Amino acid sequence: MEARPTTATDPVPAPAAPDPRPRRAGYRRLPVQQRREQLITVALELFAARPPEEVSLDDVAEAAGASRPLVYRYFAGGKQQLYEAALRTAADELTSRFAVPLAGTPSEQLAAVLDGYFAFVAEHDAGYSALLRGGSVVETARTSAIVDDVRRAALKRTLRHLGVREAGPRLTLLVRSWIAVVEGASLTWLDEGRTLPVGELRDWLVDQFTAMAAATALHDPQTARVLALLLALEEPEASRGEQGPGASRAQQEPQESRAQQGPQASRAERLREVLAAR
Amino acid sequence: MEARPTTATDPVPAPAAPDPRPRRAGYRRLPVQQRREQLITVALELFAARPPEEVSLDDVAEAAGASRPLVYRYFAGGKQQLYEAALRTAADELTSRFAVPLAGTPSEQLAAVLDGYFAFVAEHDAGYSALLRGGSVVETARTSAIVDDVRRAALKRTLRHLGVREAGPRLTLLVRSWIAVVEGASLTWLDEGRTLPVGELRDWLVDQFTAMAAATALHDPQTARVLALLLALEEPEASRGEQGPGASRAQQEPQESRAQQGPQASRAERLREVLAAR
Repeated sequence: MEARPTTATDPVPAPAAPDPRPRRAGYRRLPVQQRREQLITVALELFAARPPEEVSLDDVAEAAGASRPLVYRYFAGGKQQLYEAALRTAADELTSRFAVPLAGTPSEQLAAVLDGYFAFVAEHDAGYSALLRGGSVVETARTSAIVDDVRRAALKRTLRHLGVREAGPRLTLLVRSWIAVVEGASLTWLDEGRTLPVGELRDWLVDQFTAMAAATALHDPQTARVLALLLALEEPEASRGEQGPGASRAQQEPQESRAQQGPQASRAERLREVLAAR
Repeated sequence: MEARPTTATDPVPAPAAPDPRPRRAGYRRLPVQQRREQLITVALELFAARPPEEVSLDDVAEAAGASRPLVYRYFAGGKQQLYEAALRTAADELTSRFAVPLAGTPSEQLAAVLDGYFAFVAEHDAGYSALLRGGSVVETARTSAIVDDVRRAALKRTLRHLGVREAGPRLTLLVRSWIAVVEGASLTWLDEGRTLPVGELRDWLVDQFTAMAAATALHDPQTARVLALLLALEEPEASRGEQGPGASRAQQEPQESRAQQGPQASRAERLREVLAAR
């Protein structure tokens, strides 16, 4: 986004291209930067509520209490440029949500990031779906690049959380794949009218990470080391509030006894039990 | 695709729109249906080698030994229509590859489907990437719908392989997520110049299925039942040719001894070992 003077106010339309419609009483003059941000905010709300092809520049102008020529002053490229600016703003916001404090167990950190992610998805609903589902009229190589930037940021942030500096191709593939699963799960969640409880979906995704990392560890020593470290840092799920206090001490007991504790056992142990089911 | 008489030959361009270029000696008259199929085949080859925006209708005409007006006779909508026809043909071919014989263990069946999938990806290379990566100029709601059809067919076929008639939302989410992982892995494979061995990638994806199913089984009784059945049908990986004959009998030994056999143990057991690493 270009730096603009924040003291200027809305430029008056040039006489050659006057607004053909009468100015409405609701129109307000705003400082340039503030107007730009307001138009993007309004556009984001509209693009969140409806697919991009159902949002017109007039809709944005009306919702912003501005004229159509004024919107063109800020976004000469029209709806496509406004869409891309709104997408960039949303992408920056989403990326900023990846930065959770490095407190708690790895599962807790992952769960916190996912909570932020699902809150974002809920806010941007139809626009999020349209963008990730593909085939939208406003989708271009530029919008794809913005989405890819977010995925890259998610990859980088996840690897940092894992304490990895240089990820090999298999560990990278694992994290990318898990991010694809998160995206797909969030789309399914929206598709099904948010009927799957978001807390369950979040826990499912945390479990998916552990399971997918275990499957990758079979093929890759780097992932095996990362997983071993993660599991060592993990508390039994009891400490995530699903059990009373004291249950988290189960971690110090020998494995055999822990494996029989059912809900008190850590999720990794429950995964092991499921895999022994035959 | 519309039924067309197969005895007719290429229509001669109307006098009002003659081909401005001299007819080349290489031009051949072909029966209508045969010409249509030839144009699609040629287009598929070009779209496989280069991103869609770098393929022109003239390229297709030249590679097919046909004139530009002749290509328009078959595809009045020009490049976009030709692209969609080629995509539909490729989609049908891919979908047909999902139908593998129901022989062997579930892992072997899954591996066979994946081998077919990666062969398809290798054949359609750049076109496959461009389509799934999004933002391509030829991508429309129609092309997205074709891709979605393939994903739906993959979901349906996988559920049938799992012996499931009515999949609940969690089992459906699992299979959809795994399909997304397969897509992502194949794109990564192409991106990295196919340096990851495709056999390893296939085995990794089979392991991912088991692991992701295990994580889902923690949340869903239907998936737990399906997984238990799959594991019961599974032979130790030794029988997949990685060990000498006789090793597959390890399955009949008690679990404790199997867990210590390392490479002879089944993949599910190796997953369990990895999860016990802390």
